[in-house]
Order: sequence, then C-alpha cells, then structure tokens
Amino acid sequence: AIDAQRLNDTLQLSCQWGATPDGGMDRLALNDDDARVRRWYIGECEKVGCQVTVDAMGNIFAVRPGKQQGPPIAMGSHLDTQPTGGRYDGILGCLAALEVLRACHEAGYETIHPLVAIVWTNEEGARFIPSMLGSAVWAGMKPVEFGHSRTDDAGVSVREELERHNFLGVTASSHEQIPLKAHFELHIEQGPILDTAAHPVAVVTGVQAFRWFEIKVKGRGSHAGTTPMHLRHNPLTAFCRMALSAEELAVRFGGLATIGRVGSLATQSTNCILDDVVFHLDIRHHDDDQLNRLEAAVRESFAKIVEETLGVRLASWEPLTASQAVQFDPLAVDCVRHACKAYPKEEIISGAGHDSVNTSKRCPTAMIFIRCKDGVSHHPSEYSTPEDIAVGGRVLLDAVCRYDST
Amino acid sequence: AIDAQRLNDTLQLSCQWGATPDGGMDRLALNDDDARVRRWYIGECEKVGCQVTVDAMGNIFAVRPGKQQGPPIAMGSHLDTQPTGGRYDGILGCLAALEVLRACHEAGYETIHPLVAIVWTNEEGARFIPSMLGSAVWAGMKPVEFGHSRTDDAGVSVREELERHNFLGVTASSHEQIPLKAHFELHIEQGPILDTAAHPVAVVTGVQAFRWFEIKVKGRGSHAGTTPMHLRHNPLTAFCRMALSAEELAVRFGGLATIGRVGSLATQSTNCILDDVVFHLDIRHHDDDQLNRLEAAVRESFAKIVEETLGVRLASWEPLTASQAVQFDPLAVDCVRHACKAYPKEEIISGAGHDSVNTSKRCPTAMIFIRCKDGVSHHPSEYSTPEDIAVGGRVLLDAVCRYDST
Ligand SMILES: NC(=O)NCCC(=O)O
Ligand SMILES: NC(=O)NCCC(=O)O
Repeated sequence: AIDAQRLNDTLQLSCQWGATPDGGMDRLALNDDDARVRRWYIGECEKVGCQVTVDAMGNIFAVRPGKQQGPPIAMGSHLDTQPTGGRYDGILGCLAALEVLRACHEAGYETIHPLVAIVWTNEEGARFIPSMLGSAVWAGMKPVEFGHSRTDDAGVSVREELERHNFLGVTASSHEQIPLKAHFELHIEQGPILDTAAHPVAVVTGVQAFRWFEIKVKGRGSHAGTTPMHLRHNPLTAFCRMALSAEELAVRFGGLATIGRVGSLATQSTNCILDDVVFHLDIRHHDDDQLNRLEAAVRESFAKIVEETLGVRLASWEPLTASQAVQFDPLAVDCVRHACKAYPKEEIISGAGHDSVNTSKRCPTAMIFIRCKDGVSHHPSEYSTPEDIAVGGRVLLDAVCRYDST
Repeated sequence: AIDAQRLNDTLQLSCQWGATPDGGMDRLALNDDDARVRRWYIGECEKVGCQVTVDAMGNIFAVRPGKQQGPPIAMGSHLDTQPTGGRYDGILGCLAALEVLRACHEAGYETIHPLVAIVWTNEEGARFIPSMLGSAVWAGMKPVEFGHSRTDDAGVSVREELERHNFLGVTASSHEQIPLKAHFELHIEQGPILDTAAHPVAVVTGVQAFRWFEIKVKGRGSHAGTTPMHLRHNPLTAFCRMALSAEELAVRFGGLATIGRVGSLATQSTNCILDDVVFHLDIRHHDDDQLNRLEAAVRESFAKIVEETLGVRLASWEPLTASQAVQFDPLAVDCVRHACKAYPKEEIISGAGHDSVNTSKRCPTAMIFIRCKDGVSHHPSEYSTPEDIAVGGRVLLDAVCRYDST
C-alpha cells in the first residue's frame, strides 16, 4: 500500500531543485536543476533495488524485476517544468512511480512482469521545442538526430546538454531496444473539470489533437512620431487582429487557440513602429477533422488580415509540432477504471499532450488524472491536495497490479 | 562654403562604428561604438582648432572662438541611434556641424560669436529611457542624478557607462555653466511631408507634444491545452484590444499612438497562456490639449477593456516621459527661413522629439529638416541624397551666420 505522507513529502523534497520564491518551479529540461533532480531520482530508485538504464535521449528507465522476464509495465512521466511552472505537472507521475516501487519493495511484493519507472526527457517543450521529445524519439516518431539537434533560445542543443550532464546514454532510445508491456501515467488534470465536479480522480480515455506554428508577420519599422497613422506598415496591428481572430475561431469550432510567445526578430524600441512580429500559435481540438477545419479557418482569416493591413505580409508560417487525437488502450483504460471505482470520478479526454501520447503508439497505454485547484497549471499556483495525491498513487498502484495480472 | 562631397563622405565614414550588415546602424547610446565615434568626433573638431569640453552627462561641446567672447551659437544633434536605426537621424546634424567648422576654419572666417558643435548624449531613448536625456539635464529639466541613474535593460546605468568610457566630464551639465546664445539643429525630417511635396528642405517651426507610458496588464497564466476559452484570464487578449483601440483613438483625435515594445515579466512558453503583458505606449499630438484628450480617451478605453476581459486588470500605468508642444524662437526660425529661400521648401511642425526641444527652454532655437526617402526613419533603409545633405549643410551655415550678424 501507498504511504501517502511519504509520497507527498518526497514530491515536495524533489522540488528543492528548481523552486522559485513564489512557490512554483522553474526547472527547464536539462538545466542544472533538472540534472540534479534526475541524479537524485536515480539514486532513490537504486535504493529500492532497481536497475537503471539511461537511453540516448536521456530518458531514465528504473526497472524492478518481476517473477517473469520480458518487457516491464511502465509508470512514466517527466521532471522538467515550464519556466513559470508548478510542483505537480509531471513531477507527480514520477514521484508516484517511485512510491509504488518503494511500497512494493517494502512489502516484498513480486509482480509477474517487471515494473519500470520512467523519466521522459523534455516533456514540456518550454526549453526545447517540440514537447514530449524524449518519448517521441523512443516511440520512433522522430529520429534521435532530430531529438539531439533541438536547440533552446540561446542555441544550446539537447545533445550538448545531455553530454554536459552525463545523460547521453549508450542504449539506443527506441521502443525496439527498450520495449514496454504497457505504460501508465498519473498526472494532474491541469484543467477545471474535476475541480468543478468536486471529484478527486479521472479515467483518461484519450488526448486531444494539437498543432504548434511559428508565424512571422513582416511590416516596416519606422518612427513613432513622424509616421502618420494611415501610412504605417505596422505588423503589430495585424498581429493583434490575428490573435483576436484566432480566439474567436477557436470558440466557433469548439477548440482552443493560444498565443504563448510573441516577440520580434529585431530589438524593440519605444519610439519605433515594429518591423516584424514573430509569434507561436497553439491550436487544439478533440477531433482531428475539426482541427483541420480550425487551422484552415485561421489561415484564411490571417491571410485576409494581412491583405487588409497596409504594407504587412505573412513572411512565414512554420509548423513546429503536430499531435493527432489519441484514444488509449481499452484494456489499460479498464484497469484504471476498476482502480478508480471506489472514488467519485470522471472520464476525461486530456487537453494537454503527455508522454503517454507517444507510448500509446507502441504499447497499451492509459492515464489517471487527479484534481488540481481551480484547474490551473503551468503557473506557480498549481496545487493538488495531499489527499488527492494519495488517491492518485493508490489508483496507479492498483491499475498497474491489475494490468500485471491480466 | 560647404564641401558637399566631404560632408557626405565624412558622414558615411563616421558610420563605420555601429554599422549593421543591412546598411543600417545599431549604435545605442554609450555603447562601445558610440564611445568610438565620439572620440573620433572630438579629434576631428580639435583638428580645426576647437576647444572641447565634456560635461557631466557626456555632452560634447567643441567651441570655435569668435571675434567676441560670450555664449557661442550652437549647432547640435546626436550620434546615438536606434537598435535598428539609419545613417542620418542625428548623425547628419553632428556631421554638418563639423563641416561648418571645417569650412570656417579653411576660409579663415571669423564669426562674431563663438560657434559650438554639440553632441548630445542619449537622444534616442532606445537604450536609456527617456529620450533627449543629455539635453534635458543641460536645460535643467531633469537633475543630473536622474540622468546618471537611468539604466538599460541589463541594469547598466548611464553613469557607469560614462565612467567606463571616460566621458563623465567634470564640468556641470547645465545651461548656467555652459550657456548658449542660440541652438540650430539640422535633421532629416523622418516623415513623409518633404518627400511627398518633392521639396528638399523645411523650416521647422516647432515640435509636437508626446508622452510615453509603461503599462502592465495582469491576467493569470495557465495551460494552453486544458483551459477552456471562456475560463481564460488572458492578458494578451486585453492587450490586443488595447493596441487596436489606441490606434483608432489616435486617428479620431488627429494624433498618433504607437506600441514599440511588448513583452512579459516572466519567460514566455508556447503552451502557456501569458501571465502578464508589459508594453510601452507612445502618444503624440501637435496640440497639448488634444493630447490630454487623447490620453483620457485611451485611459477610459483601456479601463473598459480590462473590465470586459475576464480576470484581467491594469496592474500599473507608469509615465516614462512627457514633452509639451514647442514653438521655436521667431528670430532663429526667421534666420532658417531666409537661409532656405533659394529652395522649394515647407514649414513643418516636427513629429519627432529632438534635443532642440530642450534647448528651446534656455536659448533661441530653430531647426532645419531635409527630405528623407519615403519618409522612413528608425529603420536601416533610412536615406537622404548627397544633394539634399548638401542643401542642409548650406542652410545650416547660412542660418548660423545670419543669426551671428543679427
Ligand atoms: N502536460 C503538459 O503540460 N504537457 C505539455 C505538452 C502540451 O503542450 O500539451
Ligand atoms: N529624432 C528622434 O528620433 N528622436 C527620438 C525622440 C522621439 O521619440 O521623438
């Protein structure tokens, strides 16, 4: 059985690396704090008898033997955070996996299949775009060269950081090299459904589709004091119309549209009309076809906006990542459903992407969500109660054991 | 008489410090390139017999004696540029002043009053806010402590940079310590009036009023994939509405509104709704009362927008600088008017602020504009023809001599 106190205490302890004064986390993938927490995590797993493998993407696999040989049942998530992230997103899944290993170890409980706790590298996509990178390479969705060559805003690559921290494993990052029998991921919901319903836990049946784009709008910089309003080639004017239009279209199509990054190629100055605006657009929908329609509508609208804005053009529109809608494995989902049956629960399609999206291509996968306060995530105020965390840990353990005996 | 070839050649030569590959300039106030061009400029003035004083703001005064003692007639402008600036804004005025000194020196021409070429420090306000800083301290509009304490985005202060480059002069930066008989400034128009009229030169009769504000809009960051559109507290949505509204109001009031800087306090991330948006607003009008009305309308509109945007508030609204509408000295303007009489010309109220705004508080001041291509300034494509530059140099010399003999 799960030690609820220890689970929450260890989770809080693991947040010493990358904690921010506002109670949140800033532990960008493969920075020094991420390396520290990863080394600590490996040590804790080894203490309970796990054998640890690090693959070529720095993904960590801590295996606890079962009665039988063969692919292990995985409990995976991530330890990296957003620059203004919270203490639960990803972290909960990894720490709950550790608690399951500790509980099994102490009870001397032997599973049929081996178990593995996995820390996937760069899930957030905040430092290195795209998100879910380590699991994408493992799943064969992207070649390892792609994973290694991703760079952050300062031009530092994933490979450089893996080498610097000694996390460039010799084992190939591949589902063929490291096969999994199944993958279970416990995560905070990151949205308002459970909090609104006042339910602690949810069975996650799938994940909605999403796409990221980098869009450049080019105008012509000029003087703020001498350029008449009607002669401006102002890319910011077009940008503002685009942002509002994307939001309107998202509402109309029942999807989501977010602009989370906005800047310019050139240094900005108070008395200069901007020369260009560069921004990232994130669109999502539960349905792939509807996401196609939303994207088409956004493209049409943006084209119209630049046409209507003097001297402004769409200089580029680059896809950064795309993830199709996913339905999790019925059997694995059923194990979660059974494990939840004592609790008031919901069935949810995840709004956020997770490493489970990638594992679902290669092994039966399911997820468990627990409630988070006000549905807030990717923010320092992100919070889940110790009670809900305990529920999550118990459901994870139960789902894994259930799958183990099917 | 002006040597037109030498004037243009020397201007281009002076752009070796801070030139960018696109033909523009990036010579932010008091950076290494600005220090280099300033040292070179002092040397060139000394070669033609000038005595150079640097004041406590790093303003450079290169004085050529006249028949009489007493306050000199000044030809001033600036050598600093925008981060994406051109080769003429400010630079023209300083290099034309040097050419006037060279021409007088070669001709052995003795003015009644001494002449002085002035390089004012940090006119652009791009590195250190506010603009026109060196001349503001000289004019007693701001204390020298204010000038010294301005910092750039990296937190480096004006005083630190003055010390580092050995430009922290011992002479007080003050119109009392360094009085001027008059101040003439040759500048590119930076706007489209002359280019549209196909006239090379303009008499500048005054400068419009302007105000800068730093405005913070606070929302609540959260997850791009899990936060329903109708539950977002998105400060970017409010910002976009504000930007479009400010532009509309500027048109309605016959003024200008520009947002030249936009960012966030926290690091941005593709899949995070922004927590806050911070931006600079620049509003201008020829008429002080109308500028009051425009500001009031903008404030009212922004208040309404945050009221209508869920969970978003105006966290701060800080005035960064304010400059009232200025009318130049009738006698000095008349000297420019006479000096221009051979050329097809315009009478213009300057849209941009200039150091002449500050000198006008302390001595008779006037300005000369020459045409620039397409009215573009604060951009690498900023351009004035050698012919127009020659006209500008001649008019400057003539206006100064005319004022000298009044
Ligand atoms: N769980 C999570 O925040 N993942 C980041 C990937 C996404 O953008 O949905
Ligand atoms: N001339 C010029 O560009 N000055 C900068 C001050 C302003 O913003 O008008």
